[in-house]
Amino acid sequence: MMRRSIATVCLSGTLEEKLAAAAEAGFDEVELFEPDLIASALSPEQVRDRADDLGLTIGLYQPFRDFEAMPDPRENLRRAEHKFAVMERLGADLLLVCSNVSASARDDDDLAAAQLRTLAERAAEHGIRIAYEALAWGRHVSDYEHAWRIVAQVDHPNLGTCLDSFHILSRGSDPANIRDIPGDKIFYLQLADAPELVMDVLQWSRHYRCFPGQGGFDLAAFLQHVLATGYAGPLSLEVFNDVFRQADPQRMAIDAMRSLLLLEEAAGVAPIPPAAPLSGYAFVELAVSPDAAAPVERLLIAMGFRHAGQHRTKPVQLWRHGDTRILVNHDGEEHPRVAAIAVESEDPIRSADRAQHLLAPLLPRERGSGEADLSAIAAPDGTAVFFCRTDAGGWLTDFLTAGPPGGGISPDVAGIDHVALSQPFDFFDEAILFYRSVLGLELQTADELATADGLVRSRAARAADGSVRFTLSVPVVGDDGFEFQHVALASDDVLAAAQAMRDRGVPLLAIHDNYYDDLLARTALDRETVERMRELGVLYDATGDGELLHVYTEMVGPGLCFEIVERRGAYDGYGAANSPVRAAAQQPLAPSSA
Amino acid sequence: MMRRSIATVCLSGTLEEKLAAAAEAGFDEVELFEPDLIASALSPEQVRDRADDLGLTIGLYQPFRDFEAMPDPRENLRRAEHKFAVMERLGADLLLVCSNVSASARDDDDLAAAQLRTLAERAAEHGIRIAYEALAWGRHVSDYEHAWRIVAQVDHPNLGTCLDSFHILSRGSDPANIRDIPGDKIFYLQLADAPELVMDVLQWSRHYRCFPGQGGFDLAAFLQHVLATGYAGPLSLEVFNDVFRQADPQRMAIDAMRSLLLLEEAAGVAPIPPAAPLSGYAFVELAVSPDAAAPVERLLIAMGFRHAGQHRTKPVQLWRHGDTRILVNHDGEEHPRVAAIAVESEDPIRSADRAQHLLAPLLPRERGSGEADLSAIAAPDGTAVFFCRTDAGGWLTDFLTAGPPGGGISPDVAGIDHVALSQPFDFFDEAILFYRSVLGLELQTADELATADGLVRSRAARAADGSVRFTLSVPVVGDDGFEFQHVALASDDVLAAAQAMRDRGVPLLAIHDNYYDDLLARTALDRETVERMRELGVLYDATGDGELLHVYTEMVGPGLCFEIVERRGAYDGYGAANSPVRAAAQQPLAPSSA
Repeated sequence: MMRRSIATVCLSGTLEEKLAAAAEAGFDEVELFEPDLIASALSPEQVRDRADDLGLTIGLYQPFRDFEAMPDPRENLRRAEHKFAVMERLGADLLLVCSNVSASARDDDDLAAAQLRTLAERAAEHGIRIAYEALAWGRHVSDYEHAWRIVAQVDHPNLGTCLDSFHILSRGSDPANIRDIPGDKIFYLQLADAPELVMDVLQWSRHYRCFPGQGGFDLAAFLQHVLATGYAGPLSLEVFNDVFRQADPQRMAIDAMRSLLLLEEAAGVAPIPPAAPLSGYAFVELAVSPDAAAPVERLLIAMGFRHAGQHRTKPVQLWRHGDTRILVNHDGEEHPRVAAIAVESEDPIRSADRAQHLLAPLLPRERGSGEADLSAIAAPDGTAVFFCRTDAGGWLTDFLTAGPPGGGISPDVAGIDHVALSQPFDFFDEAILFYRSVLGLELQTADELATADGLVRSRAARAADGSVRFTLSVPVVGDDGFEFQHVALASDDVLAAAQAMRDRGVPLLAIHDNYYDDLLARTALDRETVERMRELGVLYDATGDGELLHVYTEMVGPGLCFEIVERRGAYDGYGAANSPVRAAAQQPLAPSSA
Repeated sequence: MMRRSIATVCLSGTLEEKLAAAAEAGFDEVELFEPDLIASALSPEQVRDRADDLGLTIGLYQPFRDFEAMPDPRENLRRAEHKFAVMERLGADLLLVCSNVSASARDDDDLAAAQLRTLAERAAEHGIRIAYEALAWGRHVSDYEHAWRIVAQVDHPNLGTCLDSFHILSRGSDPANIRDIPGDKIFYLQLADAPELVMDVLQWSRHYRCFPGQGGFDLAAFLQHVLATGYAGPLSLEVFNDVFRQADPQRMAIDAMRSLLLLEEAAGVAPIPPAAPLSGYAFVELAVSPDAAAPVERLLIAMGFRHAGQHRTKPVQLWRHGDTRILVNHDGEEHPRVAAIAVESEDPIRSADRAQHLLAPLLPRERGSGEADLSAIAAPDGTAVFFCRTDAGGWLTDFLTAGPPGGGISPDVAGIDHVALSQPFDFFDEAILFYRSVLGLELQTADELATADGLVRSRAARAADGSVRFTLSVPVVGDDGFEFQHVALASDDVLAAAQAMRDRGVPLLAIHDNYYDDLLARTALDRETVERMRELGVLYDATGDGELLHVYTEMVGPGLCFEIVERRGAYDGYGAANSPVRAAAQQPLAPSSA
C-alpha cells in the first residue's frame, strides 16, 4: 500500500483544523505548506506532537524558493539553515526546493548543480533530504527533465527530484520520459488535476487546480509512468483552488481522499469493488410536509401517476405510472424537494460496498421488521442515494398495495430520464467526483449558462447506456442559496404527452413568444410544428447527433418542477441552451438552472 | 453632448428591469442583446413601447453571428430577414454583425465583402444599417483594420464598422490607426475595460470585462482616436462580467454611467468639476450603541485620545489626539463600525459638486440651526463620506467643548494614515471606481492574499501625496457576509508607540512566534529588533522603496480594530503580505482582510 498524503494548502482553516481533517480522512502524511506554519499559533514542536497524536507524518516541508544558480549563494544558505532548524523542530526530513523564478538567477546548470550540491551536503548534516522540482514558470528550469538532469549531475544521496503532475502536464510535457528517472531519485510525487483552461500557467496553477478526476488531465497514465520507475514514496495531493480554500476542511479532505482512491483504482495501484452496472431508476423520492403535499399529489395524478402503495411503517406513499415510480414522503418540509434517488444496480451490495470504500457517508436508516435492507448514502447536497434491485422480495414488498399501479394512462411515460439538482456552492466539484466515482458514471461536457440572475455552471454525468443521468448546477460566482431541482420523465412523443397533460389540467410552463420567433429564424422547423410547440411550451434543441423536445411543468413549490423529455436520434444532452429561456419563464421562482 | 448607451447584457434581471435601470441612470439608449429579448415575456412591440416610455432608443440590436464568407449564403440571408422583421417591430435600425467564428467560413475577403454587400442591400430595403465588427477570436477576421478593409471594399451606405475597445486592445492592436477610418463609417462604438490577464481572449472577454476605469486599458487615448475621426455616434458600454451579471441592476447602471462620465472627462469630451485636492482626514466617525460604547472609549483613552467635544444636537462625541479626530456616534448598532469618513478638501463645495455630477448618492442630513452645512455622500458599502475644511467657522463649531483636545500624550499619533474597509461582494469594482472618480484618488496595485478562510482580493487607492488612503478588500469567491474595517493611525516610531500603548493598557494583537522566526530567516533584521517586534506584535514589510512597521490592537467588536503604522523611506503600501498572519492572529474573529 502506498502512503497517501495531502498538502495543507489544499484545505481551509487553521493548521490544527487542517491536520485533524487530513487524519480523519485517512491520510498517512501531510506536506506542510510553510505559510500555514508561519500563520499558526502552534510552535513547530507542537505541530510535530499534534501530527504524532493524529498518526500523521510531516512528509514534506515546502516550498523553499529561489535558491539555485544565484550569483552569491551565501544569503540563501543562511536562509536554508534557518529552515533546517525549523524542520528539525517539526521532525520533517524532506524539503521541497522549487526552481528559481528570480530575475537574479543565472541560466547556468553547472552553477545550479554546484549550489544544490552544497545545499544537499548541508542538509545531510541535519539528516534532511532535498527534493528539487521544476515549476512550470521557473525562470531557467521549467521542465521536469531539466530538473532531473541537474539532480543527476549533482549525484548526491540527499538530493532527488519532486514530480508534480500539474507542472508537467500543464506545459504539455511528455510524462512518458519519467520512466527514465530511477524511482529512488524521485523523492516526492505531487498530484493535481485541472480543468483545461488557456491562461497564464501561474494563475491556472494557483487558482484552478482540482483533485484528480475533477479536471481534464490523464492522471492514471501519469501515475503509471511514475510507478514504472519503482517509485515507492507517497502519493500526495497538492491542489490550490479558490473554492476548496474556503470550504469545510473535513469534507474537502474526504473529497481529496476519494479522488486518490479513484486514481489508485484507475492506475491499478489499489483495487476497490468495481462499480456495478446501473440500469435505470427504481424511484425518486420527494419529501414534503403533509400540509403542503396536495399540489404535488394533484400534479402526479394529472401526469397519470396513481397512489399505488403505502409504506408499512413510514409516512411514505408509492406513486406509479406503470414502472415509473415516485415516492412521496410526508416527513418533509413545507417546500417539496428531491430527498432520495434510487438507482437500479445489477449488484446493490457491491455498489454499497464500493460507496463505502470511497468514503460516501452512510445514512442511518430505521428499518421495520421484515422490511428490505436498503442502505443509503448521502450525496454532497444531502440527497440520499439508494442502490436497489426492483425484483421479487425487493424493496417494493415494504409497501402495502393501496391501489392499481397506474400505467396505460395518457400521457405515456417511459421512465425517468434524468434528475437535475442544483448544488451547494462550495461542493460542486465534490459532487462531480461523487457521481463519477461512487456511482461509476461518465462525465459529460460542462456548460455555462446566462440567466437573468447570473451565470450558472452545469455539468452532467450518466451511465454508459444513458439509463441513469444527473445534471448538476451551481452559480459561477457567489452563492445565493437557491435550490432548483427537477425530475425529467422520458416520453416517446413530447408533443402528444404535453397535449395530454394539458388536457388533464397539468399547468405547463409557458415559454415566451420570442423564443419561437427565434426558433423559426435559426432552425429548419416548419411553422406548424413551431406553432404547436409554442402553444404547449415545448422547447427544442438539436445537435449533429439528434434532437431534444422537452417541456416543463410549472413549479410545484419554489425549487421543484417536472420535465418531460423526448430524445430523438442519439441526442445525448439536456437542452442546456434552453435553460436561460426556461429560467426566465419561471421568474421570479427559478433564478438558477441546469 | 454625445449620446450614452449601455448593452443590456451588462445588467442583471429581466429586460424590463434592465431598461428601467438604464433609463434611471440617465442613459440615452441601449444595445439590445438578443438573448435578453428571446428570454423576455415582452413582445418586440412592447419592448419598443417600454423603451419609448423610458426615453430610451434601441440603438443597436446584437449580435448577428457567423454571417460572412460562407459557402452558401442563402440560409444566413433567410435568418437575417427574420431578424430584420424583429428589428422593425422593435423600432431598431442598426444590426451588429460580428465576424464569423464558424469552421465553415472561408478565408476570402472578396466573398465576405460580396455577402456583406447583399446583406446591406437587403437591410436597406428595411431602412436598417449593418455594423460589422471584428471579434478578437474571429476565425479569419479578428482585427479591426481587417474588418474596416472589407467594409471599405463593399462601400455601401448601409454598411459600416463597429469598434469595440476590448476586441482591439485585448489583442494589442494599435488603436491609433482608427484615425484612418472616416467617422461616418464607424456606426457604433462599444467601450469596455478589463484587468490585465493572460488568458484565452474569449474567456477573458466573456467573464472579466469591466467598466472603463476599473481595469487596465487606456480608454481615454482609445476614445480620442475615435473622436479624431469625427465619430459622433453614441458611446456605449458593453461589458460581460460574472459579478455584474448577478448584482443589483440599478446600482450597476449607475456605476456604468459613472464610468462613462469619468472617461468623458479624461478624454476631454464633457468636463465635470475637477476633483479638489485632498489633504488628509478631518475625522473618522465610529458608530456604536451607547451600551456597547465603553470598550471603544476605553481603547481611545488608552491610545491617548481625549473626549474633547460634544455635538450640539446629536449623540456624537468628538475625541481628539492633537489634530487627529475620531467621532463616536452613539446612534449605532451593537457592533462598532466605521460609519463616516471626512476628508479635508481644498474646496468642499467643488468636491460635493463633482460627487453629484458623478451620481454619488447624497445622504440626507438633519442640520440644527447654526450648524455647519456638511453634505455627505454614500460610498458603495454605505459608509458616509464628507468633504470638509477644518478651519474657523467650520464643522468643529458644531461641537461644544467637553475637555482639552488631548495631544502631547504618549504615544504620539501623527494623523490617520489610512482606513481599511471590506466591501460587499457584488460591489467591489463599484467601490474602486467610486474612490477613484468621486474622490479623485489614484489606484494602487491589486493584491490577492490567502487567509485561513479563503483568498481575499485587496486594492488600495490614495491621494497623490498619500495624505488620504483607503484599502478595500473582498473575498475572491463566495460572499461570507463578513465585515472587517480598521483605522490606521500614523506614527513616527511604531516600536515606541506600541510600547507606550501597552504600558497604558492597550490590548495589542499578539502575533504568533513562527512569524518572527521566518522574519529572521528572510530579512537582515537583527535579532534584538526582531525580539522587540515579537514582544509587541509589530509586523514588518520592506520593498525597494522603504519599510513598514505596523501593529494592530485587538478587535473592538467583531469587525473593527485600530492599526498604528510607521512608514520609512518611500514605502507606499500597507503591509498586505502580513495580512494572512494578522488574520490568523485574529482568528476566529477576522477571516477577511485588507
